[in-house]
Amino acid sequence: MRVSRRNWLRNAGMVCFGAAAGGTVTSLCGAPTTPAAAATPLPWPYVKLDADAVAAAAYEMHYKAGCCYAVSASIIGELARKIGSPYTSWPAELMTYGGAGVAGIGSLCGALNGAAMVTFLVTGSADKAKQGKAQEITRDIFNWYAQTPLPTFRPAQPKFENVKIVSRSNLCHVSVSKWCKASKCKISSKEREERCACLSGSVAKYTVELLNAHLAGEFKAVCKLPAESQTCRDCHDKGSPREDARVQMDCGVCHFTKTPHPTL
Amino acid sequence: MRVSRRNWLRNAGMVCFGAAAGGTVTSLCGAPTTPAAAATPLPWPYVKLDADAVAAAAYEMHYKAGCCYAVSASIIGELARKIGSPYTSWPAELMTYGGAGVAGIGSLCGALNGAAMVTFLVTGSADKAKQGKAQEITRDIFNWYAQTPLPTFRPAQPKFENVKIVSRSNLCHVSVSKWCKASKCKISSKEREERCACLSGSVAKYTVELLNAHLAGEFKAVCKLPAESQTCRDCHDKGSPREDARVQMDCGVCHFTKTPHPTL
Repeated sequence: MRVSRRNWLRNAGMVCFGAAAGGTVTSLCGAPTTPAAAATPLPWPYVKLDADAVAAAAYEMHYKAGCCYAVSASIIGELARKIGSPYTSWPAELMTYGGAGVAGIGSLCGALNGAAMVTFLVTGSADKAKQGKAQEITRDIFNWYAQTPLPTFRPAQPKFENVKIVSRSNLCHVSVSKWCKASKCKISSKEREERCACLSGSVAKYTVELLNAHLAGEFKAVCKLPAESQTCRDCHDKGSPREDARVQMDCGVCHFTKTPHPTL
Repeated sequence: MRVSRRNWLRNAGMVCFGAAAGGTVTSLCGAPTTPAAAATPLPWPYVKLDADAVAAAAYEMHYKAGCCYAVSASIIGELARKIGSPYTSWPAELMTYGGAGVAGIGSLCGALNGAAMVTFLVTGSADKAKQGKAQEITRDIFNWYAQTPLPTFRPAQPKFENVKIVSRSNLCHVSVSKWCKASKCKISSKEREERCACLSGSVAKYTVELLNAHLAGEFKAVCKLPAESQTCRDCHDKGSPREDARVQMDCGVCHFTKTPHPTL
């Protein structure tokens, strides 16, 4: 579904950065802007993609600029090839920022950050009433990532064979450290780089599978939060007695399960 | 510093989505792409912004589409007003995806996700050798966020007065739950929405201050990891005996500090 730029601006009530073609508009800041290319409103068009081809591209792209770039650029690159504009004007290198949990900080896994961005790009909207499906797909991807032995993707010519782990978390450093423990490899090893490249391939493939299913009108969320976390939510989520935790993650991976640090 | 599209493609070795003006190119996938508007290479131009004005805009924008949209669109919107293209073609509503820790999942704070994206947009590059400054600025923003009593921004006409808390984390649900405990307000309350709008204003303001300093050649990282976390890194970070944790976060907020769950 496509809407005109003019209608989108009126309906969404968002700040206007550009100008309607051929005229000038006044920004929320009060100053007239210069006529320029206008942004294409969301959702951008999507066509069925080959999930295996995208996964293979993501694996290769990981070695160019990391996980967040790999997942987003592999999907958008294929859409650019099939559709052209507006994807051809997407600054692909931008999503490099999310690599290694954003700038190497080890927070949210960059593969997931890239997958969430692309999912919103092709299914989302600034209109809150139209964001439900993007959120459903994104949450399914995050839950799948936390609960699945990864990586599921294996390239045609792997540099190393991989150990699979279940991270139980969407955070980079949790996933990486669990893999280091299982593989007995270090964070700076070539084996770890290969593992994360395969992880990017895995996340790109699953994301495309869900987006293809959504396009076909067949998407249904299959990966739910663990039952234990639902028990936590009964007391802490919206509508509960306490209403003090806004979260859809596996609580037990960090809370109430700690062992003391080994004696130094 | 600006480089031609042709040079950027040659130097960065990235996948080409678009086509050089007036001609056709062959994508990594092997198929010729259709000539189209090419992406503007990073970094996009930056000019000094009024941090207080951007903060006020971010506060207002939070009520439109959440934290990640607010921080990114407030900064990019002001750059669009001052510079025009390429900012005028930026799909501002896209960053809505990061709201409430990505699709309401409670992972990475959306204000930080938006700040990191914009920081990379105006200071980053796909070239690994040129990413250091973007990473330094982003890590400073993340450490500042975790260590500062927030929100620091107060609108001209606040809907509610705010309790400030130090989250010690870059995660949405940690920050929100600590604020709920301190304020005795619920996650779905209007007071919590106002608090997160002020938080968006705070993060946008600090980000602009750092980007202005970088523009002036005066940026120096001032917010470092806590000394306790540095002790952890001595054994777990790259170059250490174990090398099994790739992370720049306050370890103690989740590790080895747990109290048991109250009796149900």
